[in-house]
Amino acid sequence: MPVGTQATVKGLTPRQLEKEINARILLANTYHLWLRPGAATIREAGGLHSFMRWPRAILTDSGGYQVFSLAHLRKVSEDGVEFRSHLDGSLHFLSPEKAIDIQRALGSDIMMVLDECTPYPVDAAPARESMRLSARWAERSFGRWRTGGPEPADMLFAIVQGSTYTDLRRECARRLVDLGAPGYAIGGLSVGEPRELSYDMVAACEAELPRCRPRYAMGVGMPAELGRYVALGIDMMDCVLPTRNARNGCLFTRAGKIMIKNAAHARSHVPVDERCQCYACRNFTRAYLRHLFLAREMLYSTLATMHNLWLYLDTMRRIREAIIAGTLPDFLRQSGPSGD
Amino acid sequence: MPVGTQATVKGLTPRQLEKEINARILLANTYHLWLRPGAATIREAGGLHSFMRWPRAILTDSGGYQVFSLAHLRKVSEDGVEFRSHLDGSLHFLSPEKAIDIQRALGSDIMMVLDECTPYPVDAAPARESMRLSARWAERSFGRWRTGGPEPADMLFAIVQGSTYTDLRRECARRLVDLGAPGYAIGGLSVGEPRELSYDMVAACEAELPRCRPRYAMGVGMPAELGRYVALGIDMMDCVLPTRNARNGCLFTRAGKIMIKNAAHARSHVPVDERCQCYACRNFTRAYLRHLFLAREMLYSTLATMHNLWLYLDTMRRIREAIIAGTLPDFLRQSGPSGD
Repeated sequence: MPVGTQATVKGLTPRQLEKEINARILLANTYHLWLRPGAATIREAGGLHSFMRWPRAILTDSGGYQVFSLAHLRKVSEDGVEFRSHLDGSLHFLSPEKAIDIQRALGSDIMMVLDECTPYPVDAAPARESMRLSARWAERSFGRWRTGGPEPADMLFAIVQGSTYTDLRRECARRLVDLGAPGYAIGGLSVGEPRELSYDMVAACEAELPRCRPRYAMGVGMPAELGRYVALGIDMMDCVLPTRNARNGCLFTRAGKIMIKNAAHARSHVPVDERCQCYACRNFTRAYLRHLFLAREMLYSTLATMHNLWLYLDTMRRIREAIIAGTLPDFLRQSGPSGD
Repeated sequence: MPVGTQATVKGLTPRQLEKEINARILLANTYHLWLRPGAATIREAGGLHSFMRWPRAILTDSGGYQVFSLAHLRKVSEDGVEFRSHLDGSLHFLSPEKAIDIQRALGSDIMMVLDECTPYPVDAAPARESMRLSARWAERSFGRWRTGGPEPADMLFAIVQGSTYTDLRRECARRLVDLGAPGYAIGGLSVGEPRELSYDMVAACEAELPRCRPRYAMGVGMPAELGRYVALGIDMMDCVLPTRNARNGCLFTRAGKIMIKNAAHARSHVPVDERCQCYACRNFTRAYLRHLFLAREMLYSTLATMHNLWLYLDTMRRIREAIIAGTLPDFLRQSGPSGD
C-alpha cells in the first residue's frame, strides 16, 4: 500500500495513482490529518475519499505510531495518551475510542486500533506490560467500533504487539483472535531489529492468527523482502521506502538499486530499468532524471515515485502470479538481490 | 507559452502539459541548460524534445537575459559576454554565434538572438549604445543562422531593444526588419517600468514590424494584460507568473486572484474557480489545496500550476475566439480585473 500521510502520496495526483500505478488501496495517517486540516474539515468535505479525490480503498493507521515517534511530551495512562503536537505544541489526548471516532470521521475503509509502540530493543518485562496495555486498548477499540458507528461497512484491524519476544507475540495474537477482528496486523516491526528477527515474529504471530482473515505487516519492507513476508502468510504491507527513497535519489530496479545522482548516469540515455513498463521508464532516461534531481526539479520526485511504486506493485503482482502458478519458491530464489 | 526553464515546467509531466493544459509550445532557457546538464548531453540525447519528452514546439531564449540577471562578474565586449556561472563560479563566454550553436545543439524550434538587457530606468545615451550593440549582435546571429546550421527547419527571432525610448525602439525595429527574420520579439519589458510605458513601447515597435510575421512580447504578463498586448498586435507571450505565482500560493480566477493560504479557504469546499474546467477545479476544493499548501505537499504545486496555466491558455483561447467573432473590444472591456 502506497503511503499518503497527509491525504496525498507525495508527488502524484490521485489520477496517476489510479491510472499509472493501479494502486488499489492507500494508507493515510490519522495523527497528521487529525492535527491538520482536522477531522471536522475532512468530515465536512464528505470524508477523505472525497477530500483527496481517491475513489478506491483507504486504510488509516490509528495515530498511535506517530504519537510515539513525532509528538512531544507524551503521558501514557490506562485511559490513553496525552501529547503535544509536533506542529504547534498544542495539547491533545488520544484514547482507543477517540482513535475510532476520528477514523470514522475521516471515512476510512480499514481502521486500526490504537496501540502503544515500544522501541527496539526493550526488556521483556516492559514489553509484556506494553503489549497487555495495547491488548486492553484493542478490546476498547472494538467495543467502540461495534456500538458507536453509523457506517456498517468499515472494518477494524487488531494489531499484534510484543516486541521481539515470541511468547509475547503469541499471547497477544491469541488474545486478539478472541475479538473476531476482520483483519490482523503485526505491529512493532522495522524499528531497528535484525531482519531475521522480524521474520521470526511474523511466523510466531501467523501460527495463531486465523487463515481466513487478512494479515498485514506494518511498515515493511525492501523489494526483496516482500516475497519473504508473503511466504510467511502476509497479505498486506505498507512502507514509505518506495516513495521516500525515490525522493532521496534511490531508485529500485530488478538488478538492484541505483543512486541517480551518481556521475555514471550523467550520459546514460537509457531508462532506469529497461524491463520496467512504468510511465517514467517508458519515456525518460537516467540522464534526464539525474538532471532533474540535481536541478531540484519537482518532476524528478514525481517520476521517481512513479517508478518505485510501480516496481513495488509489480513485484506484488508477480508474487500473486507465482502463488497461483505454484512457483513461489522459485520466485523467492530468483528475487534475491533486488533492491538490497 | 509556459516556461520550462530547466527542461521541465515545474510540477507537471509533459503528458499533463499536453493532455490537460493542451500547451502547444514551451519555452526553455538556454543559459540554464547550457550550464546544466550541458548542450553536449542534450544533443547526445537526441535534443531537448527527446530529452524532456515533449513532442510539440520549443522556443529557447538566447541565454542573454539570464547572463545579465543571474550570472556573476559579467564583462561585456563587442565580441560577446564573459561571466561566471551562478551554480559553481565557472568561467564562460557567450557570443551571438555561440548562442545559435547552443540552441541548435538543443534542437530548438524557435531560437532567439543574443541581446544585451538594460535595467530600468536607464538614461537615453547608454540605452542607445546598448540597443545598437544588441542590433549588431542580432546581425551576427542571423549570419550564423543562415550559414552555420544543418537544420533548415529551425527559426530565429530578432529582439527589439531600446528601453523606454520610443525613438530607440523604432530605430532598432527598422534595423532588424532588414534582417528578414521569421519573427520579431520585443525585449526589455516587465523590468520594473509602469505598465502603460510597456504598452507604449509595444505600440512603437508594432508600427515598424511586418504584419505577416509573428510578434512576441517577452516576459509578460498578468491575465488581464494578455488581451491588451494582443490588441496591440502581439501574437506570442511567455511568463513565469502563472507557474511561479501558483507555487507561491497565488491562484488566478476570472473574479480576480486568491491567496490559498488565507483562513477564508480553510473550509471552502468549492473549486478555486467554479467556471474553470481544469483538472484541479474539476476534482479538488480550495480547502484541499489550502491543506496541501500548508502541509508543503508537492501535489499543491502540481494542481495550482495546472490551474493557473489552464486559465492563461483559456484566456488566450477566448481572445482568439473574440478576434474571429469581431468582439475583441467587448472582451477587453469585460476582462478588467481578472487576476490583478
